[in-house]
Amino acid sequence: MTVTGPRGEYAKTPARRHEILSAAVEVFSAAGYHKGSLRDVAERVGLSQAGVLHHFPSKHHLIEAVLAWRDDESRRRFRAGASGLATIRDLVDLVDYNQNTPQLIELYATLSAEATTPDHPLHDYFVKRYADVVAFVQNSLEHAAAVGDLRPDVDPAPAARCVLALMDGLQIQWLYDRDSVDMAAQVRHYVQSLLDVEL
Amino acid sequence: MTVTGPRGEYAKTPARRHEILSAAVEVFSAAGYHKGSLRDVAERVGLSQAGVLHHFPSKHHLIEAVLAWRDDESRRRFRAGASGLATIRDLVDLVDYNQNTPQLIELYATLSAEATTPDHPLHDYFVKRYADVVAFVQNSLEHAAAVGDLRPDVDPAPAARCVLALMDGLQIQWLYDRDSVDMAAQVRHYVQSLLDVEL
Repeated sequence: MTVTGPRGEYAKTPARRHEILSAAVEVFSAAGYHKGSLRDVAERVGLSQAGVLHHFPSKHHLIEAVLAWRDDESRRRFRAGASGLATIRDLVDLVDYNQNTPQLIELYATLSAEATTPDHPLHDYFVKRYADVVAFVQNSLEHAAAVGDLRPDVDPAPAARCVLALMDGLQIQWLYDRDSVDMAAQVRHYVQSLLDVEL
Repeated sequence: MTVTGPRGEYAKTPARRHEILSAAVEVFSAAGYHKGSLRDVAERVGLSQAGVLHHFPSKHHLIEAVLAWRDDESRRRFRAGASGLATIRDLVDLVDYNQNTPQLIELYATLSAEATTPDHPLHDYFVKRYADVVAFVQNSLEHAAAVGDLRPDVDPAPAARCVLALMDGLQIQWLYDRDSVDMAAQVRHYVQSLLDVEL
């Protein structure tokens, strides 16, 4: 006996989900959350809207899945069990890596700016996301400080916010002028200025 | 004989224009360019859409007027004829001042992120705006360098981009968590680190 699952546009294969997520990145990076539509996403992957809704029950679910996928991809760039300087190095390498994913950068920049309005459906996601990432970077800087890798005049809490602000701000400038902005070099240079050791 | 101009919603008074611009800031800071509508702006000021269109012939004209107004306001915070350190001080003071205009910050953050897409109606505005502002800050840093106010190891071109990135990135963090982010202190601290003199 052969057991077969659903076929065609209702097949819940990881490949089909991934195809929809990629299309969603294209649609929402250009249009933002409000303007982007499930219909546009469906068109790009040759599905009906019902076909997309079978995989993601609403636009909100779809965007959350895109962001969770992006967060997982970023998280995977950090060595497990590492801390302090090793994690800081991974963070700087992540900026290098991000330069290969301009549409994800555009998506993130657009959504994070749009969602600053408190009643935006993604507002709570970004409040939590920023708090988590600031705490993560601050923690790495504190670990670096504990073993003497941080310059003694650097305060980890504001420095963590600074590193992230620099990353976000350079992304915007880079999206407008990719030839003139070297995000990775700029972040590396700033982070190096916080350290008492070679990055 | 008394000569009177047009009355009511068609009166082209500066006050009425200003009222429409303020309403536009509210609408477009929350909704972005694509989603924001002239109808919402008109409703807020108690005009018909035709009434708004009498003052600004299209949504695009209205947004451009808002941005030009914001640019003028920012420009007025810089002392005429100043350069180098004096201009850098004005820039840092501007960050202080901006903390009193959260909706303008939100508008700017939302539009500048949304318009990174090349076919966005405001794309060219922001390309030019970033190029102009980077050149302006770079020029101030070069003037500071020429009189020995800049640390000798600071390269004005990337440092200018860094200052602006920091300002943009901190604005996003501040919009999410106003109690935890002191934009002015952070920018001041970073800019001070570039200088050989007291800010």
